[in-house]
Amino acid sequence: MVKVFHYTEVEAEEAKEQGAKGVYVRWLITEKIGAENFAMRYFEVEPDGYSPLHSHPWEHEVYVLEGKGVVVSEEGEKPIGPGDVVFVPPNETHQFRNTGSTTLKFLCLIPIKRG
Amino acid sequence: MVKVFHYTEVEAEEAKEQGAKGVYVRWLITEKIGAENFAMRYFEVEPDGYSPLHSHPWEHEVYVLEGKGVVVSEEGEKPIGPGDVVFVPPNETHQFRNTGSTTLKFLCLIPIKRG
Repeated sequence: MVKVFHYTEVEAEEAKEQGAKGVYVRWLITEKIGAENFAMRYFEVEPDGYSPLHSHPWEHEVYVLEGKGVVVSEEGEKPIGPGDVVFVPPNETHQFRNTGSTTLKFLCLIPIKRG
Repeated sequence: MVKVFHYTEVEAEEAKEQGAKGVYVRWLITEKIGAENFAMRYFEVEPDGYSPLHSHPWEHEVYVLEGKGVVVSEEGEKPIGPGDVVFVPPNETHQFRNTGSTTLKFLCLIPIKRG
């Protein structure tokens, strides 16, 4: 069955990971509703908030919806804003930081199998 | 290397598939930039436009950005608008139709391996 729902119907959970500040995530599409290949998540990062500076063996596919920030990587900082697309390959060190005065909002998709 | 670009940097191609009308697609993240698991595409559907009513053995993960439309499936029509999430499981008949007066814009992600 085709499923349609508003992103706000999925509760936002605070990211408790070490090195995260003011980051909330909604797991929109996961194995629970039948996704077998990749998961869609909706992130909100408060002003002055950031995700952990880390790396892992899976990629990120990101689309920025609202707000202003930077992606930190080994090449330095790259600014991001609405309509920007970010591809973080596996094993690349990365961090998302809100540098604006409003909430930074983006979709971030990852593979289901993250062994 | 982390890649950042605006979605408008990727050219929109008209969907030439039979049964499509007024549909344009930008392939934002693909194998070409290193994605091995899933691809991110940006769709624009003109007023009165629609994607083909069809099915295929892979899923869609959709996030609606702008505009107003419906998803047609075997269960009928479900309205969609900004902030709506759509999961189309493999082999489900589906169609996206613009029912508004502005362009319907959404992201639609699919697995890379669609054998």
